[in-house]
Amino acid sequence: MAAEIVNPRSDSENRDASEQGGGAEPLESFDPAFALHRGGKMAVQATVPIRDKDDLSLAYTPGVAKVCSAIAEQPELVHDYTWKSSVVAVVTDGTAVLGLGDIGPEASLPVMEGKAILFKQFGGVDAVPLALNCTDVDEIIETVVRLAPSFGGVNLEDISAPRCFEIERRLQERLDIPVFHDDQHGTAVVTLAALRNAARLSGRPLGELRAVISGAGAAGVAIAKMLVEAGIGDVAVADRKGVVSRDREDLTPIKAELASFTNKAGISGTLESALAGADVFIGVSGGTVSEPAVASMAQGAFVFAMANPTPEVHPEVAHKYAAVVATGRSDYPNQINNVLAFPGIFAGALQVRASRITEGMKLAAAEALASVVGDDLAADYVIPSPFDERVAPAVTAAVAAAARAEGVARR
Amino acid sequence: MAAEIVNPRSDSENRDASEQGGGAEPLESFDPAFALHRGGKMAVQATVPIRDKDDLSLAYTPGVAKVCSAIAEQPELVHDYTWKSSVVAVVTDGTAVLGLGDIGPEASLPVMEGKAILFKQFGGVDAVPLALNCTDVDEIIETVVRLAPSFGGVNLEDISAPRCFEIERRLQERLDIPVFHDDQHGTAVVTLAALRNAARLSGRPLGELRAVISGAGAAGVAIAKMLVEAGIGDVAVADRKGVVSRDREDLTPIKAELASFTNKAGISGTLESALAGADVFIGVSGGTVSEPAVASMAQGAFVFAMANPTPEVHPEVAHKYAAVVATGRSDYPNQINNVLAFPGIFAGALQVRASRITEGMKLAAAEALASVVGDDLAADYVIPSPFDERVAPAVTAAVAAAARAEGVARR
Repeated sequence: MAAEIVNPRSDSENRDASEQGGGAEPLESFDPAFALHRGGKMAVQATVPIRDKDDLSLAYTPGVAKVCSAIAEQPELVHDYTWKSSVVAVVTDGTAVLGLGDIGPEASLPVMEGKAILFKQFGGVDAVPLALNCTDVDEIIETVVRLAPSFGGVNLEDISAPRCFEIERRLQERLDIPVFHDDQHGTAVVTLAALRNAARLSGRPLGELRAVISGAGAAGVAIAKMLVEAGIGDVAVADRKGVVSRDREDLTPIKAELASFTNKAGISGTLESALAGADVFIGVSGGTVSEPAVASMAQGAFVFAMANPTPEVHPEVAHKYAAVVATGRSDYPNQINNVLAFPGIFAGALQVRASRITEGMKLAAAEALASVVGDDLAADYVIPSPFDERVAPAVTAAVAAAARAEGVARR
Repeated sequence: MAAEIVNPRSDSENRDASEQGGGAEPLESFDPAFALHRGGKMAVQATVPIRDKDDLSLAYTPGVAKVCSAIAEQPELVHDYTWKSSVVAVVTDGTAVLGLGDIGPEASLPVMEGKAILFKQFGGVDAVPLALNCTDVDEIIETVVRLAPSFGGVNLEDISAPRCFEIERRLQERLDIPVFHDDQHGTAVVTLAALRNAARLSGRPLGELRAVISGAGAAGVAIAKMLVEAGIGDVAVADRKGVVSRDREDLTPIKAELASFTNKAGISGTLESALAGADVFIGVSGGTVSEPAVASMAQGAFVFAMANPTPEVHPEVAHKYAAVVATGRSDYPNQINNVLAFPGIFAGALQVRASRITEGMKLAAAEALASVVGDDLAADYVIPSPFDERVAPAVTAAVAAAARAEGVARR
C-alpha cells in the first residue's frame, strides 16, 4: 500500500536552507519535526508522460478538447476522465487545530498536509489541503460548494464545534459527493471498532454496556450517536458542567439533541459520579479523571482515555481497575487513531462514487476494522496498528459494499 | 527537468475499465486522447516517509503541533514549513475554455489538469486544478481570497473577457501572492519574445515597427500592453467591428482604455485595411485574414497567426509575403506556446516569494526566453521549442532577478 516516496525538493534551489529567511535554522536544531517539514510534505505528480510534442498534443491542446467536449455533453464522464473521483479536499478554517485551538489557516497547514499524505499513504486517495481564511459558517459552505466540481469528496478537519455540525450537514445537503468531518466520524468509527472487540473479549454484548463519554464536542457527540446506532445499552455524555440530561436548561441545540437520544437512565451530576458502576469510559475531552472515579466503575470496565498528549486517565492507573485500556497515543497498546478509518472510508466511497457517507457505511467500516484483529484479540490488542496493511483494504471493501447496499453508490 | 512519471492508478480497482459506467469505451476506441485521460492525469505524493510510528509522530501528531505553533507565532514560516511556496492554484470558472467557450467547470477540468502537469513538468511547480461552479465576478474573487492561505500563487485560466481583467486586478489588490491570468500575460510574454527575435533577425528596432493585432480579448489586450511597454513603434488592435480607436463610440471600458495607449496613428476601419504597410500581424482572434491583406503588408513583415487549430493566415500563404511566420501549432516552426512562459514565471516568482508579478518581471521573462535562441536565430527559429531544457531555468532566473530588482521579492 505504501507508495514510493520521492522528494523533488531535496535539490531545489528555492529550498536551499542557506537562502532562507531568519528564524528557521534555530528551530531545526531545536526539534527534528522542523527539518522534516522544510518545504512541506507533499507534491503533485503527472501520471501521464509529456516527453514530446505528440504527448503534449494529447494531454493538452488540441487533444484535450475532445475530452472536454465529451464531459460537457455527458457530465458523468468527469469521473472517468479527470482525477475528480480520486481526489478529496481537506478543508479547514483553522479554528480547532489539534489541541492548539484557533490558530488560523496558515498555521493549520502542516496538519492538513499531514492529513493529505496519510490519505495517500494509507488509502491511495489523493488529497489537497485547503485552509480557508474565513470562519463564517455561510462563507465556508459557499466556498466549498463552489470548489466541489473539482473534487470527489470533502474531508472537513479541525473546524470548531458546534459550527462543524451545521457546516457538515448543510454541505451534504447541497453536494452530491461525500462530506465527512473526520474529527467526528473517523474518531467514532475507530472507537466503536475498539469497543466491539473489547466487548467480544469480555463476552458481553454491546446492549448490556453502559458508557460514559467525557467531552461533548465534535468527537463526543459523534461517538455517542454511533454507539447508540450500534446498540449500546446506554451512553451518557458529560461536558464541563456535568452530564448532559434532558432536565438541564443550559443546553445548546446540539446538546439538547444529544440529550434526546442519550442518557436513558436520566442520570445527572458530575462526570465522575456518572462513572460509578459504568462499564465504559470514553475520554475525548482533554480533562482528567481521578483514580477513585475509575475505581468506582463496574468490574471488567473498559477505559478509552483518548486525549493527546495527556490521557484523561494515565494508562497505568487505568490498568489497575479496567479490563481493557486504550489511548490516543502511539507509545501505548490499543491506539485509537483516525488514520485507521478515514483513508479506507474515502477510498471505498470514491471507488463506487458514493454520493454521501451513510451511517451504514460508517458502521460497516467499524466492523471491518474490528474484524482485522480476528483471533489475535487480547486485552492489549483490541484495535490493529495503523501500519497493519490489512486495515485499509478491509475498510475500503466494507464501505464500498455498504454504499451499494444503501443505494448511494453510482457504480 | 522532466520528473519521473508514475501512474499509481494503473492497477487500481476503481480505475478498472470493465467496471466503468456507460459511454466510455466507445470514446476510447474513437480517439486516443480518451485512453490517455482515463483516471485523470495527476496525483499527489508524499515527499516525506511514513514507514513507522516514529515517522507518523513527526509528520503528524504530536510532532506537527510544534510546527503549527511556530507558524502561528511567526506567520512567514508558513513558506518554510509547508508546500505553500511551491504550489499554485489553477483557477477557472469554465467560461472560456480553449476554443470551446463556456462549457462549465467539470468539462474544463481536463484542461486545468493539463495545465497543472505542465507546471510540474516544465517548472517544477506543484499546481492544483480548481474549477469553480460560480461565474459571478465578486463570488470568484471572494472564493480565491478565502483559498489564498494554502497557495503561493494563483494562475487564472480560461475565464472569459472582460470579466478576467477585473478579477485579476481586484484579486492582486487583495492578495500578497502573485495572481496571473495566463491567457493574457503568458501569451503576451511569448509573443514579445518571438517578436524581439524576429526584429533582431531583421536588424530593425522594435521602435520602428507598426503592429496590428486581430482580437481584443484577453490575449489581444495583454499583447498590446506589453508591446507598448517594450517600446513598439505603434500597435493597433482590431475587434470584430474594426480597429479600436479613440473616435469609436461603441467601446467597452477595457477597449476605451486600450484606445488610449494604442493606435497613435489614429487609423480606423477594418483589420485588413489597417494591415496595409504594417510590419507585424498578430492574430489571436480565430478569424481569417485574406491573402491580399497579407500581401499589402510592408516588405519583410512578420506574421504571427496564432489561432488554433486554424491560423488566421495559413502559414504557406504567409510565407509568400512575410520574412518571419509563427503560429500556435506544434506542426509548424515557431510555435507561440504559453508553456514556454508560465512555468518559469511562477517558478521564479515562487523562488523569491514575490508578492506579485510585475510588468518588469514579464518583460524579463520575454527577454530571457528570446535569448535562449541565441546565435541559432533564423526565420524558422525565432522562439525555442517547449522541450528545450534551457527555457524554464532561463525564465526562472530572469523573473527572480527582476522581482528582486523591483522590490517585490520577500527573500
